[in-house]
Amino acid sequence: MVDQFDFKRGRILPAPENFLSAVGKSRRRALGGLLAGGAALLTAGTAQAAQAVGAAADNAGKAMPPGIPPWSQTLGKPVGANPYGIPSSFESTTIRRSSPGLTTTTQSSVAFTPLQNLFGIITPNGLHFERDHNGRPDIDPYQHRLMVHGLVRKPKIYSMEDLLRFPSVSRIHFVECGANSAMEWANPSVPTVQYTHGMLSCSEWTGVPLSTLLEDVGFDTKKAKYLLAEGADAAGLTRTIPISFALDDVLVAYGQNGEMLRPEQGYPVRLLVPGVQGISNVKWLRRIKVGDMPWDTREETLQYSDLMPDGSLRQYTWIQEAKSVITSPSGGQQLLDKGGYFEITGLAWSGRGHIKRVDISTDGGKNWRTAKLQAPVLDKALTRFRADWTWDGSPALLQSRCIDSTGYVQPKMRQLREVRGTHSIYHNNAIQTWLVDAEGKVHNVEV
Amino acid sequence: MVDQFDFKRGRILPAPENFLSAVGKSRRRALGGLLAGGAALLTAGTAQAAQAVGAAADNAGKAMPPGIPPWSQTLGKPVGANPYGIPSSFESTTIRRSSPGLTTTTQSSVAFTPLQNLFGIITPNGLHFERDHNGRPDIDPYQHRLMVHGLVRKPKIYSMEDLLRFPSVSRIHFVECGANSAMEWANPSVPTVQYTHGMLSCSEWTGVPLSTLLEDVGFDTKKAKYLLAEGADAAGLTRTIPISFALDDVLVAYGQNGEMLRPEQGYPVRLLVPGVQGISNVKWLRRIKVGDMPWDTREETLQYSDLMPDGSLRQYTWIQEAKSVITSPSGGQQLLDKGGYFEITGLAWSGRGHIKRVDISTDGGKNWRTAKLQAPVLDKALTRFRADWTWDGSPALLQSRCIDSTGYVQPKMRQLREVRGTHSIYHNNAIQTWLVDAEGKVHNVEV
Repeated sequence: MVDQFDFKRGRILPAPENFLSAVGKSRRRALGGLLAGGAALLTAGTAQAAQAVGAAADNAGKAMPPGIPPWSQTLGKPVGANPYGIPSSFESTTIRRSSPGLTTTTQSSVAFTPLQNLFGIITPNGLHFERDHNGRPDIDPYQHRLMVHGLVRKPKIYSMEDLLRFPSVSRIHFVECGANSAMEWANPSVPTVQYTHGMLSCSEWTGVPLSTLLEDVGFDTKKAKYLLAEGADAAGLTRTIPISFALDDVLVAYGQNGEMLRPEQGYPVRLLVPGVQGISNVKWLRRIKVGDMPWDTREETLQYSDLMPDGSLRQYTWIQEAKSVITSPSGGQQLLDKGGYFEITGLAWSGRGHIKRVDISTDGGKNWRTAKLQAPVLDKALTRFRADWTWDGSPALLQSRCIDSTGYVQPKMRQLREVRGTHSIYHNNAIQTWLVDAEGKVHNVEV
Repeated sequence: MVDQFDFKRGRILPAPENFLSAVGKSRRRALGGLLAGGAALLTAGTAQAAQAVGAAADNAGKAMPPGIPPWSQTLGKPVGANPYGIPSSFESTTIRRSSPGLTTTTQSSVAFTPLQNLFGIITPNGLHFERDHNGRPDIDPYQHRLMVHGLVRKPKIYSMEDLLRFPSVSRIHFVECGANSAMEWANPSVPTVQYTHGMLSCSEWTGVPLSTLLEDVGFDTKKAKYLLAEGADAAGLTRTIPISFALDDVLVAYGQNGEMLRPEQGYPVRLLVPGVQGISNVKWLRRIKVGDMPWDTREETLQYSDLMPDGSLRQYTWIQEAKSVITSPSGGQQLLDKGGYFEITGLAWSGRGHIKRVDISTDGGKNWRTAKLQAPVLDKALTRFRADWTWDGSPALLQSRCIDSTGYVQPKMRQLREVRGTHSIYHNNAIQTWLVDAEGKVHNVEV
């Protein structure tokens, strides 16, 4: 069953329609069929075993499959057969996944990024997580307009052509839903990192600095304290944004990883509020109103607020604090060897700056060592970390803990609960624990 | 004709099946139809003209299209309707383009990246240029093997699982075909930057350092001087690579912008030789042989060598020297206003390091000023540059010229020809000139 296999060494993943049905379905692909035959195609002499650095001995003995493979004998597909390319059919399980059980409608729902299958820091546009409140609108960019009004001297309506005409900037930033890891507040409840952390993606965004537009309309520099941003989907989703953010690094973004935004990311234009929870990055942006007070919209009172232990409601928690997670090995995966070398790798990010350090533990937080950070390490962007691990085959508890440029240290789940209780939904940035059991199966646990 | 419009302000592009038929077909989209109606949807008072910073006065007067757009009134598509997302249907002309006239078969051909439509430095995987010698093979990663042999102590055959098991790195690098801009050696011959410079893309690549594999097989550190890399396509494409490159920054790459390589980029594994012409970045990599001399294969004798003015053949020209090009405004585009503010933007890159400076001229090289470089500026990666330009409406000659971290200055076409003659195909890194005529049409010219 090729489509059950995640093509990352040592990892077999379920391909669940629904994560509720996926637990325990991991399978191990039989590789025995590939061991026969000689190195018919190649000109070398003796072909010895392939053995990865430090890999367990049962990795040895790989040889060439018998015969010359068909792709080395025939003409391939014409160049440009796909004017817009698509992934290999062998990668059909590297997809966004929704969960029918998680939301009551498919339009107000979420599709998670398969972090366990990804490399580096860029999320391909086809796999950027999706969170809509009224489904995905299909907007005609010629008809779309953005109004900027309120406490301004010259309210204006911009066409897409106007927006594309302004001086632009490009920056790499993550977007994380405020509800990422929400299902883990009470206890570990979902099997894979796709569901625990997959409302997280990172792209190179291009657009006009919002400060440029505010200058263009002549905003009231004395009275203006907040903005209201509104989407053109039928949810008319609205969020309040402090003017200090707008004058700092907020973009009115139309580009994502080189091309125009994808429809599910706000085509033709969205707000990009670096470091701030996903919902503030209003998609399908149609209106910005400049005001002097927060608006207390539905999405910042009834929703996207945190019920605290004392019964009060915590509002306007914009920033995504520093957080990290090991993406491999991670929940639902199966290490194919019962010991030996594995690379531990994952992602770290902070809404307040850049990642200064990531520590790794393989014993549930008793001992820590420092991981390598992959350059470039950018502000408010994902940072890829890696650490070598030689597994002795006994159960191990893998954790990562990051420290950001402000000195903030990622908390334990217990520490978060002490302050926030168990009725929160949003802003869970706790340390994640993966248990590798003696069979090499990886589980979502808490220690 | 929506699909004739490149959604970048002020730019209308042909959507040629064949660039030979595309010259002079640029059209101007009538925008008059959008001017009627009031701001019915929005709550603001008077909606004034949208006017970009410094834009010409005829930009003014934009208002809302009449009525509430349908996407603000109805449920959208379900979340996750596309488990692997695709671009908006309004972006259907942002595609790779081939030219039937350029090659005699569609399997040994090229599809160019639409640089004129792209932002930032990352090329989306669906738009990475494609250059195959025998078409695009469809390789089963379970069957694929990579042999490393020759002057080594322990020749080995690696499965993809073995390769994915090794410690990995991720880096952002450009890949440029050695024949990029080849059609311009004699005179400007193609209409758009897609065809003049579109054998150029940039991705975040992930893989195993080749040095790790060489260490694993115990290469002969005294005798080893060169490697032969061979692809698994039926072309069995082979190229010689100096061992010094291999021990520096060469990757055996399986990841591209976060996901597994695309089939046309070498799925499941390719060589990534940063800064070196595309063909050396052997796709569908099946074999690496360690030796002590260059191999003089077909692709480094008959092909990919330069006929010099004295009749000699210049071989083994690995490095892509520093080069830059303005991607907007660029050939085939139409500036919608006859004057006013435009952002000049483009790309610069060097196979020897990072870009130190880019200069811009709007008068064919008489006067130069320094462009802004977009961070991050990385070694052997594309660097996005930008410069403000207020066009006075008279014909203008736009040029960019880059200087890399070694101090190398991008040459003029004339300077290149003085040394290399006009029978070269490869390694044309000359300054590109775009003529903006009095009608705002942009043409490929030489000055």
